[in-house]
Amino acid sequence: MYRAPVEEISFTLKHVAGLKAAIEEGAFGDLGEDLADAILQEAGRFATEEVTPLREIGDRHGAVLKDAAVTTPPGWKELYARWREGGWNALQAPEEFGGQGLPAMLGVAVLEMWNSASIAFGLGPMLTMGAVEAVEKHASEALKHTYLEKLVSGEWMGTMNLTEPQAGSDLNALRARAERAGDGTYRIFGQKIFITYGEHDFTDNIVHLVLARLPDAPAGTRGISLFLVPKFLVNEDGSLGARNDLFCSGLEHKLGIHASPTCTMIFGDGFAEGREPGAVGWLIGEENRGLACMFTMMNNARLAVGIQGVAVAEAAFQKALAYANERRQGKAASYSGEGMAPIVHHPDVQRTLLSMKTLTQAARAICYSCAHAADRARAGGERAQYWQERVNLLTPVAKAFSTDVGVDVASLGVQVHGGMGFIEETGAAALLRDARIAPIYEGTNGIQAIDLLTRKLPLDGGEHIGGYIAELGGIVSDVRSSNLPGFGRSANALDDALDDFSNATRHLQKLLANGRMDEALAGATPYLRLFALAAGGAYLARAALADGDEERQALCRFFAENLLGETRPLRESIVEGAASVGVAGKALISD
Amino acid sequence: MYRAPVEEISFTLKHVAGLKAAIEEGAFGDLGEDLADAILQEAGRFATEEVTPLREIGDRHGAVLKDAAVTTPPGWKELYARWREGGWNALQAPEEFGGQGLPAMLGVAVLEMWNSASIAFGLGPMLTMGAVEAVEKHASEALKHTYLEKLVSGEWMGTMNLTEPQAGSDLNALRARAERAGDGTYRIFGQKIFITYGEHDFTDNIVHLVLARLPDAPAGTRGISLFLVPKFLVNEDGSLGARNDLFCSGLEHKLGIHASPTCTMIFGDGFAEGREPGAVGWLIGEENRGLACMFTMMNNARLAVGIQGVAVAEAAFQKALAYANERRQGKAASYSGEGMAPIVHHPDVQRTLLSMKTLTQAARAICYSCAHAADRARAGGERAQYWQERVNLLTPVAKAFSTDVGVDVASLGVQVHGGMGFIEETGAAALLRDARIAPIYEGTNGIQAIDLLTRKLPLDGGEHIGGYIAELGGIVSDVRSSNLPGFGRSANALDDALDDFSNATRHLQKLLANGRMDEALAGATPYLRLFALAAGGAYLARAALADGDEERQALCRFFAENLLGETRPLRESIVEGAASVGVAGKALISD
Repeated sequence: MYRAPVEEISFTLKHVAGLKAAIEEGAFGDLGEDLADAILQEAGRFATEEVTPLREIGDRHGAVLKDAAVTTPPGWKELYARWREGGWNALQAPEEFGGQGLPAMLGVAVLEMWNSASIAFGLGPMLTMGAVEAVEKHASEALKHTYLEKLVSGEWMGTMNLTEPQAGSDLNALRARAERAGDGTYRIFGQKIFITYGEHDFTDNIVHLVLARLPDAPAGTRGISLFLVPKFLVNEDGSLGARNDLFCSGLEHKLGIHASPTCTMIFGDGFAEGREPGAVGWLIGEENRGLACMFTMMNNARLAVGIQGVAVAEAAFQKALAYANERRQGKAASYSGEGMAPIVHHPDVQRTLLSMKTLTQAARAICYSCAHAADRARAGGERAQYWQERVNLLTPVAKAFSTDVGVDVASLGVQVHGGMGFIEETGAAALLRDARIAPIYEGTNGIQAIDLLTRKLPLDGGEHIGGYIAELGGIVSDVRSSNLPGFGRSANALDDALDDFSNATRHLQKLLANGRMDEALAGATPYLRLFALAAGGAYLARAALADGDEERQALCRFFAENLLGETRPLRESIVEGAASVGVAGKALISD
Repeated sequence: MYRAPVEEISFTLKHVAGLKAAIEEGAFGDLGEDLADAILQEAGRFATEEVTPLREIGDRHGAVLKDAAVTTPPGWKELYARWREGGWNALQAPEEFGGQGLPAMLGVAVLEMWNSASIAFGLGPMLTMGAVEAVEKHASEALKHTYLEKLVSGEWMGTMNLTEPQAGSDLNALRARAERAGDGTYRIFGQKIFITYGEHDFTDNIVHLVLARLPDAPAGTRGISLFLVPKFLVNEDGSLGARNDLFCSGLEHKLGIHASPTCTMIFGDGFAEGREPGAVGWLIGEENRGLACMFTMMNNARLAVGIQGVAVAEAAFQKALAYANERRQGKAASYSGEGMAPIVHHPDVQRTLLSMKTLTQAARAICYSCAHAADRARAGGERAQYWQERVNLLTPVAKAFSTDVGVDVASLGVQVHGGMGFIEETGAAALLRDARIAPIYEGTNGIQAIDLLTRKLPLDGGEHIGGYIAELGGIVSDVRSSNLPGFGRSANALDDALDDFSNATRHLQKLLANGRMDEALAGATPYLRLFALAAGGAYLARAALADGDEERQALCRFFAENLLGETRPLRESIVEGAASVGVAGKALISD
């Protein structure tokens, strides 16, 4: 059973990702460490005691669709109500609309806890927060007035409607259409798929943000507009009016996150009787500029999905560790007790658990550092541009690496359980099933790697990434000069990894500059992983330096001496292996 | 939809694993290439046309238990009957009892096809074949007379009853007991769990092989005996007699292989009314020597599970390749057609598919080579000992590497499908669910790695492994002297990998010799993977050399330049990282 690792989260926020320094510099107003810890503590309690017990019920019952209405699993509606009453939905939201305006760093930390307890639960609020942000940044005052307070409090939830059957990664292919109604509103028509929490019974109203094309829109992504389309129209006094012309026509039958309804949504098909077909929508931002609005949400959503990877890895690690301490098989040199040894004494099991633990910590550090950069960017000042670049740089890495870690660690967790791991009642397999979505949604990890390569390496004329690597190098110097024997060969291993990182970066930048696009693209996925391993290793070192704790040094050393070496073959693959992809890849293409 | 890759399988058997040479040398009697190909062709047809269509039904319905009887999914009983009528169960079985006495190489090749079509289906017969082998090798003539022909024809199926709740990896802890009845038979009492096809409706009788302890047996594994315990007792004339005192008390609710009943079996609890409790059993082999009999089966079962890894990887690759050629998103430089490019044109997708394809081929080559060694050992002669050592060496690698590949490739297959991969109806997720059991059962992959390290490295005074590495080195020399440009840097990469392999081997042998057991054990899993990558790379090279095909050279080159480099960090982890496992591992242990 998951217990929120509040201390570890607090430590990582403060000493690895920069919360402590930011608070001391006054970047977060009157937020102090005590308040931050109190919030984490209470979130940990809620996640552990309230959300976790409903995970398995959610997985088993799933969400059920009947007559266009979705029923969430037993107890989930009440859970959401308690969660909302706790003010958790409003944590990061603007104070003007009833939010608490707290930093993203705290936002991701508590998000991790909800998602460790249940990704299916954490997912709904995550989308509402995205909707809050898009409306706040881009919508008219009138829309803000009508919707924002209720979205911030969680009285209503929000959704993102992007995907269509033919348009997943490629939004150019979107077909949903919007027509001007002549009264400033629009009518929306079309089908959207994979809409998370597109319909449910948590709230009285659901606020859909929908991408669609106007009749006279240019082709491609420059012709996409964003609309706010509520399930129920809202009267002047804020009460609910007529049902809008949209409905959920189907739920997907998924590998995992069963409690989260994944909806096919139909807009403008005449669902609301007695009215002309067409879902009533309001423009957010400008016509044909919808993608820019969506991208605001997307950066945050990508980080949030990365956090899901960390979250599920943490839950899987805890579960495997507990089992390894309980299950007894065979003999082990380090066990002197009676009978068979708990399997945690076996070196092979220790290696597995240490891989799980350090990969989880590395991914967490990357995600929290990304949130820190977002807070710094939002705080403004002369370094705002620099910090925004840092957010942009780290976001695809946080998303893709962490979600890969989520799957890998959950799979190792199954393995530690042996035969019991394959039995559903154990719960280890359910974590793997849930984890498997995260590398896919919010832009597949392949898309993240391409984004990192093509949009993020060129930041600041290609200089930002170099600065980042140099910063990581500073941590390694500190390791070296610490002379702490507990680090073992960490400093050398980290230096080698950063060399690989620089070397691969320069190589890819050169390919991009020379227009050798396919060769560069062939290296995108290995590059993202190389980036993350090097950064994650440096962050583990920073954690170990922060408090001189021998256990942290041992973890850093384990990672450096056992996992970090992967950066060399990754570099080789990027630098020397890309051509072979093109050669061998031809035979994969059907005629 | 899976189509059996008959040509690829035949090619690998003949030119990589040694079937062609063995046939030419007359090692397989009058078996010729034509007959071998005809068998593969017909197995391919059966797997593709008969088994594959029932896979999804099996996954959806699962096996159902009611009143101690198990009903298999609709159509499965009939499928088994057709399969058995096709003579497939008898393929490898001894001719004396109605079998065809064909080599294990053909056995594993057709086993791959059944398991690609459905692991849940392939699993049942696999266990029957194990039972045939144990009975043939170790049972009395009377038992052979009564049971063997029907097990060979598949009229009855067999099971293996090892695991108990407290005894999974550690058979020392077995508690099931056997009592001498005084008439040469025994009475068996106890509970066994995770018994595959322990109860079902495929056949009228089920022949359980059960491990249990006699009252006066020594403690530990030297006190375990093996018994044959039929579901129904068999009359003198071969007809079925009374129901024996055993029953299935529960089915596990599993992540995958739903159609395969995983049973809790209760022996001697008074299930057969009107008789003294105690399941009637007959000793196989000698008292207290059951483990030796079981090990005979286990080596084959481990290879067979390795084949399941290859099988599911092949199915996942085919599915992903088909989807990548169909699904269109975005633009790609190599695509000059209309509209969006099929995603197979994207370099990142190509890298993924090539990783899937080459890992599958590498694992297949290792498994088939292991079967080849088994056939050579069985053929006897002065090299029989050498070949038996080769079987022993390759078995844990075939089991663990291939099943890891099965999971990894199935997971990549989900990823290639994007959002559709997470939807159960697509079928990609089901392959991942099925694949996940294989690294666990028949000895977890951690157990395999420990077996390789502690029992296989010392073979032939530690010389056998060196000879194997030298043989692989011969392939690399051939690559180098071929001067074929299509190999790219393959020869250098392979040489480096073999250096890592030798180096890690010598290091581990030294640790073993010096009694530094925990350090050696900490390197067991990385070593098994290093072994498999180096061997797999060499086998891909052998395949490419065999016919001078440029596509095979390109695949070898892709593997060598992109995946083989992992051997270096694996070696480093084994040689330099093991100490850190012990240091960091301490903190994992609860007080």
